[in-house]
Amino acid sequence: MLRNGILGIGRKSLTLSRFNLKNARFLQYDAFVDRHIGPRRLEQQQMLDFVGFKDLDDLTGTNVPNIIKFDKLLNLPAPLDEYKMLKELESIAAQNKIYRTYIGMGYYNTIVPAVISRNILQNIGWISQYTPYQAEISQGRLESLLNFQTMIAEMTGLPTTNASLLDEATATAEAVALAARTTKRNKVVVDAFCHPQNLDLVKTRSDPLGIQVEVTNDLDSVDFSDKSIGAIVIQYPNTEGRIQELGKLIENAHKNGTLVVMVCDLLSLTILKSPGDLGADIAVGSAQRFGVPLGYGGPHAGFMAVAKIDSKNSLSRNMPGRIIGVTKDANGKRALRLALQTREQHIRRDKATSNICTAQALLANMAAMYAVYHGPNRLTEIARGVHKSTAYLASHLRDAGHTIIHKDFFDTLKVQLRSSDSISEFKKRAEKAEMNFRYFEDGAIGVALDETVKSEDLVDIIDVFNQSGKNADMEKLRQERWEVASPLIGNSVHARSSLFLQHPVFNTYHSEQQLVRYMKRLENKDVSLVHSMIPLGSCTMKLNASAELIPITWPGFSNLHPFAPISQASGYQQIFQDLEKWLCEITGYDNFSLQPNSGANGEYAGLLTIRNYLIHKGEEHRNICLIPTSAHGTNPASAHMANMKVVVVDSDQHGNINFRDLQQKAEKHSKNLAAIMVTYPSTHGVFESSIKDVCDLVHQHGGQVYLDGANMNAQVGLCRPGDYGSDVSHLNLHKTFCIPHGGGGPGVGPIGVKSHLAPFLPGHSVIPVDGRQSGSVSAAPWGSANILPITWAYIRMMGGLGLKEATQVAILNANYMAKRLEHEFRIVYKDEQGLVAHEFIVDCKPFKKFGIEVVDIAKRLMDYGFHSPTMSWPVHDCLMIEPTESEDKAEMDRLVEALLAIREEIRQIENGTLDKNLNPLKLAPHTLEKVIDDKWDLPYSRQLAAYPKPWCAHKAWPTVGRVDDQFGDKNLMCTCPPIESYQ
Amino acid sequence: MLRNGILGIGRKSLTLSRFNLKNARFLQYDAFVDRHIGPRRLEQQQMLDFVGFKDLDDLTGTNVPNIIKFDKLLNLPAPLDEYKMLKELESIAAQNKIYRTYIGMGYYNTIVPAVISRNILQNIGWISQYTPYQAEISQGRLESLLNFQTMIAEMTGLPTTNASLLDEATATAEAVALAARTTKRNKVVVDAFCHPQNLDLVKTRSDPLGIQVEVTNDLDSVDFSDKSIGAIVIQYPNTEGRIQELGKLIENAHKNGTLVVMVCDLLSLTILKSPGDLGADIAVGSAQRFGVPLGYGGPHAGFMAVAKIDSKNSLSRNMPGRIIGVTKDANGKRALRLALQTREQHIRRDKATSNICTAQALLANMAAMYAVYHGPNRLTEIARGVHKSTAYLASHLRDAGHTIIHKDFFDTLKVQLRSSDSISEFKKRAEKAEMNFRYFEDGAIGVALDETVKSEDLVDIIDVFNQSGKNADMEKLRQERWEVASPLIGNSVHARSSLFLQHPVFNTYHSEQQLVRYMKRLENKDVSLVHSMIPLGSCTMKLNASAELIPITWPGFSNLHPFAPISQASGYQQIFQDLEKWLCEITGYDNFSLQPNSGANGEYAGLLTIRNYLIHKGEEHRNICLIPTSAHGTNPASAHMANMKVVVVDSDQHGNINFRDLQQKAEKHSKNLAAIMVTYPSTHGVFESSIKDVCDLVHQHGGQVYLDGANMNAQVGLCRPGDYGSDVSHLNLHKTFCIPHGGGGPGVGPIGVKSHLAPFLPGHSVIPVDGRQSGSVSAAPWGSANILPITWAYIRMMGGLGLKEATQVAILNANYMAKRLEHEFRIVYKDEQGLVAHEFIVDCKPFKKFGIEVVDIAKRLMDYGFHSPTMSWPVHDCLMIEPTESEDKAEMDRLVEALLAIREEIRQIENGTLDKNLNPLKLAPHTLEKVIDDKWDLPYSRQLAAYPKPWCAHKAWPTVGRVDDQFGDKNLMCTCPPIESYQ
Repeated sequence: MLRNGILGIGRKSLTLSRFNLKNARFLQYDAFVDRHIGPRRLEQQQMLDFVGFKDLDDLTGTNVPNIIKFDKLLNLPAPLDEYKMLKELESIAAQNKIYRTYIGMGYYNTIVPAVISRNILQNIGWISQYTPYQAEISQGRLESLLNFQTMIAEMTGLPTTNASLLDEATATAEAVALAARTTKRNKVVVDAFCHPQNLDLVKTRSDPLGIQVEVTNDLDSVDFSDKSIGAIVIQYPNTEGRIQELGKLIENAHKNGTLVVMVCDLLSLTILKSPGDLGADIAVGSAQRFGVPLGYGGPHAGFMAVAKIDSKNSLSRNMPGRIIGVTKDANGKRALRLALQTREQHIRRDKATSNICTAQALLANMAAMYAVYHGPNRLTEIARGVHKSTAYLASHLRDAGHTIIHKDFFDTLKVQLRSSDSISEFKKRAEKAEMNFRYFEDGAIGVALDETVKSEDLVDIIDVFNQSGKNADMEKLRQERWEVASPLIGNSVHARSSLFLQHPVFNTYHSEQQLVRYMKRLENKDVSLVHSMIPLGSCTMKLNASAELIPITWPGFSNLHPFAPISQASGYQQIFQDLEKWLCEITGYDNFSLQPNSGANGEYAGLLTIRNYLIHKGEEHRNICLIPTSAHGTNPASAHMANMKVVVVDSDQHGNINFRDLQQKAEKHSKNLAAIMVTYPSTHGVFESSIKDVCDLVHQHGGQVYLDGANMNAQVGLCRPGDYGSDVSHLNLHKTFCIPHGGGGPGVGPIGVKSHLAPFLPGHSVIPVDGRQSGSVSAAPWGSANILPITWAYIRMMGGLGLKEATQVAILNANYMAKRLEHEFRIVYKDEQGLVAHEFIVDCKPFKKFGIEVVDIAKRLMDYGFHSPTMSWPVHDCLMIEPTESEDKAEMDRLVEALLAIREEIRQIENGTLDKNLNPLKLAPHTLEKVIDDKWDLPYSRQLAAYPKPWCAHKAWPTVGRVDDQFGDKNLMCTCPPIESYQ
Repeated sequence: MLRNGILGIGRKSLTLSRFNLKNARFLQYDAFVDRHIGPRRLEQQQMLDFVGFKDLDDLTGTNVPNIIKFDKLLNLPAPLDEYKMLKELESIAAQNKIYRTYIGMGYYNTIVPAVISRNILQNIGWISQYTPYQAEISQGRLESLLNFQTMIAEMTGLPTTNASLLDEATATAEAVALAARTTKRNKVVVDAFCHPQNLDLVKTRSDPLGIQVEVTNDLDSVDFSDKSIGAIVIQYPNTEGRIQELGKLIENAHKNGTLVVMVCDLLSLTILKSPGDLGADIAVGSAQRFGVPLGYGGPHAGFMAVAKIDSKNSLSRNMPGRIIGVTKDANGKRALRLALQTREQHIRRDKATSNICTAQALLANMAAMYAVYHGPNRLTEIARGVHKSTAYLASHLRDAGHTIIHKDFFDTLKVQLRSSDSISEFKKRAEKAEMNFRYFEDGAIGVALDETVKSEDLVDIIDVFNQSGKNADMEKLRQERWEVASPLIGNSVHARSSLFLQHPVFNTYHSEQQLVRYMKRLENKDVSLVHSMIPLGSCTMKLNASAELIPITWPGFSNLHPFAPISQASGYQQIFQDLEKWLCEITGYDNFSLQPNSGANGEYAGLLTIRNYLIHKGEEHRNICLIPTSAHGTNPASAHMANMKVVVVDSDQHGNINFRDLQQKAEKHSKNLAAIMVTYPSTHGVFESSIKDVCDLVHQHGGQVYLDGANMNAQVGLCRPGDYGSDVSHLNLHKTFCIPHGGGGPGVGPIGVKSHLAPFLPGHSVIPVDGRQSGSVSAAPWGSANILPITWAYIRMMGGLGLKEATQVAILNANYMAKRLEHEFRIVYKDEQGLVAHEFIVDCKPFKKFGIEVVDIAKRLMDYGFHSPTMSWPVHDCLMIEPTESEDKAEMDRLVEALLAIREEIRQIENGTLDKNLNPLKLAPHTLEKVIDDKWDLPYSRQLAAYPKPWCAHKAWPTVGRVDDQFGDKNLMCTCPPIESYQ
């Protein structure tokens, strides 16, 4: 095997570089593209020779259909090296003004413990893993996510919960849908005093589902008696800070079969009665203020927890989102894994009740570690401190003649200025003091405090309120603060008495040394990109470069409240404008919305945009959505959520859309055709030559084309969806545009549209977005703004040529691997030229006759140190491999070697050299514990089990044996097992 | 075993906390002290009960002799939590003004690759390891340091090199001493055009060694013929940027037995003839500009490489500093380890020729990774780019009528303004443009360029020079720059033709994905504080908190040139003032110097201060230094370097200084007594009650007391050296004050003195330090300024009470462990109360009769997942254990269990249950490779070998078997083995 290191050394490769420099792409030696792309020039040439092409243009010129080719250079700014890019981005970050902000509304300042920021958020070992589908090499983050679930379950007092949702607003909408489904009632009543973005999103999402949303100003007057109300949704404490007595209301609701959804503040639950204490059925909220930066709106982890109601209408089994569950492994040892996966949209498709896929694993992990680090006592202390400050502030303001509107509060006050004071003067004073408050329409002022508020801040707040000009006495206040009369909650009916976070995990790691070791231990259980390539087809696990990641923790980006006046967010607005412009150039669309905070959410937003457009045109009846068999499972699920009826289009024997079938179905549904959803290149890994015809055909029948951008990594710089007929696409910035997967989120799924759809893009109820009137799809106006600088940095450093070259190398890498494997594995689909796109599918069905399933190969790859490719999707009994451009030849060669070695092992099973049952595939993966056990009674060697190749010496070991999914699903447990069971 | 997590949960421990809150130390729940200190309150109480004391004050009140007790509270600012501390430090950092700086003089702007900054400098897994004395669990950084050595050897063209020295100036002084020693000539000639700080330090260090330093303005006129000159020292290129022809000079020198020392610029060596090419004998320099931030002067890695001259006077075997060498392990596999350790000062003591101990491992690793990432071609391209810019600038300035003083240059120009221009006007223009240049005394201007300089910068530089007011044409210049006539060096006699960095390691990891995986693979081979406690006696491996580390990579701290005008460094100056004040309060001294950049350098600086004081008093004859047997090896080595004669003082049977012997020797040498060097508490781990008497006695005889601050972690807040009679101490900020060890440096060794010594503290030749006149001991005026914010942050967050409590818990932890172990291991020394201080020594001599050496126990501990305690120092056949306050009870209990289990294994050897030779101690450590090998012919189980305790499942494995020191020393190889040998 020729390695760059050996061949490309010294003067020799310099000559080679010079030769290649002719095309001026690498004039600057510090070009980032040279760091992003894995294979060196020489390796690229070797691979091109191997697949039979002269150069990259030759390859992709053959590969991409002529009719859709983009022949120009992407018009993007000239690339910067990482040093210059960081300087430019620094100056952009500096344009964001970080005022002291007391707006609240679901977003609070929080102290991110430095140890968590540095060792999780800034640690590529914690942020570059994939979703933990391969449980045996994911026990670290599975444990952390189980901690998250345990935390949510105990804080809310509801036993079953999931490993995060996208944000509080979508979680609320999911809760409404879940309640309506469960009660089979299509009416819900929502407290008008929910945070406006929650209200907005409930409306947006309920409408297509046919759920009628009634907003009430007065919870106490809701009449449940006609038993038509599926759910009542209450914000707790409400958006004005008020804590209401809910006992009677809940009793009343339950008496009439109405489910109670509480949208709650996590920190307040340390001292307030929990939803479980109050008898609620579903609790949702955001874990942001548990140590996750504001980040101008996200990403943060939304959560949901549900009560056990009855086994027939199980809320837990119908709950959306991924659930981590406890089970056992092949050796009978405890192991964790994703539970109840059959509920997920990739299995249930249009029967799915939610399209949620990517969640917010990374942020859930941060929040969980915040609870692990602080423990129940310190969390309570934090909440008490915040509450104390608020009570103190209230009494001060009251003394000064202002009116505190609500008697019972936790951390938020609604204040009516005394009549002699003027609100405009107040605003002026606040602006001068660089402070943000919430301004209600009725002229009142909202003040929400948090754990960062210190005595000095209280003094300054009081000063802003004090229009008579007398300054507060700082010293006096500092002392008084701690002598304020016992806080109200502690002595009130609202006080919590139930225990929480009693599990040792929340009571053990309270020093930094302990926490660092705990986090490192978990990190080392997981395979991430720091170990080896993660060749997941359709997931584009490419390099997440340090220079891209560094800016996201700069205070200028992380400490901005999403509802701060837009004039304070010039830096972010610059990023958004740049990104929208660049993404339009890359895709050929006219407008972009950055709001959707996951790929699935992007799909949904895209379809909703189409729906709103059709309604606007008076074609509301158009509700048919054509979806090819090969589509991502989220496609039909999203269509379902957007009130579209899915009609499936067949594939032909080459894996392409069956054009005849498409014609027939388009014709048949011509009158009601809303849209087609296609993925391009297809999920079969092929550039279909018919794509333009497909678009034209759908347009002819009055439908819109939704092109799923999941495979954009094969298109950037080579062809543009907006050019060849698509009307709308979402992009997965966490695939093609370098946002790390975070172990299962965050994702970002912006949507691009042609101009006719632009007016129907998502808007926002609090902060207007380009005057758009449609409802929002995420809680924050620009979704997960905090991580958009990653994509900005990537595009800024790559430039048009660099992006194109990345795409070309991604395609080269896939074709190289496919060609190296094709003698031993059938490549399921290729195009007319015999090429694949940026990924390809290998057939494992032939091995079934020897008893070998594709899952055996996936698990056996762990023994070789590799994460499995995508399993049995989009074709059963197959593996889909996507190397991406960031992997070098040597790494791909190792994966090829591993697959060929496994093929040989299968041959040995076939010919009887290895036992049919007791063979290294069936018993894979082999844990360290297993192979160093003194007892070894398997008919093959330890060496073969664990070190089949010399490079396995560096592998990350699976820490449990093969997990038992059935056992876990039958015995669902989704919180930390009680301590006794560890002994 | 009672663990915090199980006992201390929920309300129960809240009650306990409340109880403890009475003393108000933990009023704030967010107190950092609570994160820094490992054992929770409950655990502390359990341990206090176990050792038989009521509370911490009771314990340390008994432990610390009454006569020296510090009964007040340290007068330090009230502690801040990490959030507030970081805010305060941010505002301090913002006071440093980062101008574009072209001063040069050995310090250059550099682009720290983001991937290296994030994954090494910001990664606790790479910075919290100890010096790699335990080679089997240190192969990662050993490999990286070997890369460093290979890089230095190849760049300089000299075959033998070490794993870094403190900085360029100390390296130059070490080279002078080495040359003088080797040639046995006590005269050296130094080029006047060396960087001034190098010249200064050579003078400072040569004087006490009796080496006569002659400075010459004209290298060509040096007369070597009387064969009295030991070495000639040349800066290459020189401080004015000039490249001289050296061929004849070197020939002439060699003809007369003079060694040639070249102080060279690493980057220039990619295109300039190397010292080896030119025939030089010793090359030294700094690796700073290979991707290590300026950091206002340090830390950076100095380097030294030497030629093979003849076997008798081997330069390589006499070279100072740690050398990484290749050897084999017990299984015959290649392994790395510290070579030729018998040369080191801890063995040779006053026979040592250098006191260097801590070096700059972390910075050497960063520089090595910079070379690994860039490879020879890109490094050359960087150098060419810098040179090209310089040539372009020169031709522009020449055209404008200015004079470029030296024809041959690499990156630095000395420019004489045209006669019509004024230097004061130039300075004004430069200040306005926020640019720093070098201003020579003769009115010329120095301009040194670097890899960060872009076209825009050249334009701005030219504009500053252009007093006629016409602006440079940016666009034109941008184009012209790349069309400048072939650079001068390439076509000159100075051009390098020899190859370098041909080894695969410098030609394989050129994409970020590859480099990240390589760095991670190395990281995972090393045991660091992220894995388990590192209980090294005398090394104080305590928590290095994230909040302390985060600020050091802020641009405000990392991008400042050490010779920038002091007005631009207000932030740093604030840090220095605070630190000096706080350290004075902590130690009882009157003044501090922050300059020494290691503990040993601090010792040396302290003794030099004493020496200069004595000379000033006219007592130059006082040259006797009393040193107890138990002293650190660096003590006698430093004394030797400061021209003092060491007289050893005996210990008594309790390990204390034998006071009678001290009296006799003090009396005997009364007339010539210069100083005593004592460590307190003693290196035997005991608070000696006689310490005040010792100080008094020495003072009576006219000597000064040097109190080694290595054990300061047992004193902070309890007693102060300045109070009980010491005149001077160094502190190891990398021990007591939380600077991480970096795998073998950086260290910081500031010295505190009583006021009579203050005028004799180190000064600096370029930037005056408090008007001090003495020579410097480090290249930069405030040594390793960049890492001082770590200590600042620690003190700022702990406050006086917190620091005291840390000390108390450190002592509690040591006494707890000692008491748990004492039934199975003899604790060698205790005080009159039966207590130890913050560390203790366990006797392993009794096991020798069963064939078990202390090294066997040390290696066996690796199998249990622990780093060995300090071995055979200060007492042979013993282990010295220092847990520090950051370790919690559970972690200490695991180490105790491991030691007790090993004791039991020894018992089984004794009684024959285990074989005398083939037992797990003798064959320790057991590698993964070994225990999963199908062949297992040892008479004990794999389980016993590798997983003797359940918690071993989480251990970091040794990656090689026991290393063979003798083989490696006999076959010294200190660069990467040729690639063929890998196959």
